[in-house]
Amino acid sequence: MTPLIFITNDDGYLSRGLRHLADTAKEFGDVVVVAPESNASGQSTSITCARPLRVRHVGDWGGVAYHACSGTPADCVKMGTEQICPRRPDLVLSGINFGSNASINIIYSGTMGAVLEGCLSGFPSIGFSLLHHNPEGDLSGCTAVVQHILSEVLAHPLPDWTGLNVNIPRLPADQIKGIRICRQARAAWRDSLEKRIDPAGQPYYWMTGKFVCNDMEPDSDMRALTDGYVSVVPVRPDFTHCEAIPLLGHLAKENCETTA
Amino acid sequence: MTPLIFITNDDGYLSRGLRHLADTAKEFGDVVVVAPESNASGQSTSITCARPLRVRHVGDWGGVAYHACSGTPADCVKMGTEQICPRRPDLVLSGINFGSNASINIIYSGTMGAVLEGCLSGFPSIGFSLLHHNPEGDLSGCTAVVQHILSEVLAHPLPDWTGLNVNIPRLPADQIKGIRICRQARAAWRDSLEKRIDPAGQPYYWMTGKFVCNDMEPDSDMRALTDGYVSVVPVRPDFTHCEAIPLLGHLAKENCETTA
Repeated sequence: MTPLIFITNDDGYLSRGLRHLADTAKEFGDVVVVAPESNASGQSTSITCARPLRVRHVGDWGGVAYHACSGTPADCVKMGTEQICPRRPDLVLSGINFGSNASINIIYSGTMGAVLEGCLSGFPSIGFSLLHHNPEGDLSGCTAVVQHILSEVLAHPLPDWTGLNVNIPRLPADQIKGIRICRQARAAWRDSLEKRIDPAGQPYYWMTGKFVCNDMEPDSDMRALTDGYVSVVPVRPDFTHCEAIPLLGHLAKENCETTA
Repeated sequence: MTPLIFITNDDGYLSRGLRHLADTAKEFGDVVVVAPESNASGQSTSITCARPLRVRHVGDWGGVAYHACSGTPADCVKMGTEQICPRRPDLVLSGINFGSNASINIIYSGTMGAVLEGCLSGFPSIGFSLLHHNPEGDLSGCTAVVQHILSEVLAHPLPDWTGLNVNIPRLPADQIKGIRICRQARAAWRDSLEKRIDPAGQPYYWMTGKFVCNDMEPDSDMRALTDGYVSVVPVRPDFTHCEAIPLLGHLAKENCETTA
């Protein structure tokens, strides 16, 4: 049977990156799109609990049906896979995002929030991001990368409970050196808030910050991208720090009636 | 020097769980609170990029200064630790949340989003959740648990890049069997959206769903809680599925100029 490919993003249903991904994916199967009404960057795996969700068909472009949902990227995955897709999709894709989701950026990313939601619901799920912040940026370097990965993943299913975080360097197609399988580089954002004073003399703060990464080991995604490679990090929706478990025996206890 | 303890939550600055945590923590150090203006459940590690943030001092209760921030729990951690705390805090706490953040719930949780934000910024960070959805629920079973964990963590620092996800069963203090160190149980929410029809005949959807967990192995957090124990899962802000890396060699490639 023709594969059914569900696609969402966090830049909203009108993003060129979403259209590029859908147009590339439709060579590999039937495509259904449900994406946020507007930009949902930074929304992580947040879901909408306090108000109801809406979804509407907004158009058919390039032979693909596009729907807009009032919620987050993770909401879009639930809406798309449970309510809009005619059957259980074979793949969940998210992107192509404008801007890096490598390293620690994954934790804030709506693009990757959708991938983690797809993954925990049992779908092979892949997020694509281009290291270019301009929504008018050149997407041509992404085409062969998306084609290669979709072709491989449809031929050789991903391991159980696994998604992929794919980041693509901002390079013309013929200058991308290749694709590396990596782990997430350790990094952080420093000095996140810029304080300003409004006309009434009151402070307000803009999210900003400096990305600090000293983890450029050969297996890190930041190293691959710096070297001109596409980085592919297998991910799963599990935060357990397994190596720490044997170090925390002193916290265990056989009753809690008295204080320590 | 007296430890400085920063506290936030996702239920908002007026939550009884926040007050209970701050009142318990103040026996261990100086406490500063910055919490969301209102309920921010389900916000994961989302951050606010598209609009500026505000923060205001809302009162001093029980000798602790409380601030309300217009953003998400992760925003509150950035705001609190960078702008409000007089110095770098020694601990970041989040909670006490009303409702479980065990197993896969962590991925949607604003409470645990704050912990992951604290953790990646280099702070020992701990989230506390009570398995009771009612914001008027009895918190007395939590006191000795929080005391024990704060006392241990201040005496024996957590491993680097490590936070804790602490879930407390809904039991009187003298019926809690003890504390177990666990891993996150694998689970998912099924049938997430309930469709309804509005008075104009148009569909809308409420987030709901059925929690499905078949992972009751002795080391899982769901098993500990079912057995009447507090579950403590060490967490880190890293999604890499390390075991999958060696299985994905077929995706690697030394150039991307042609399609697969």
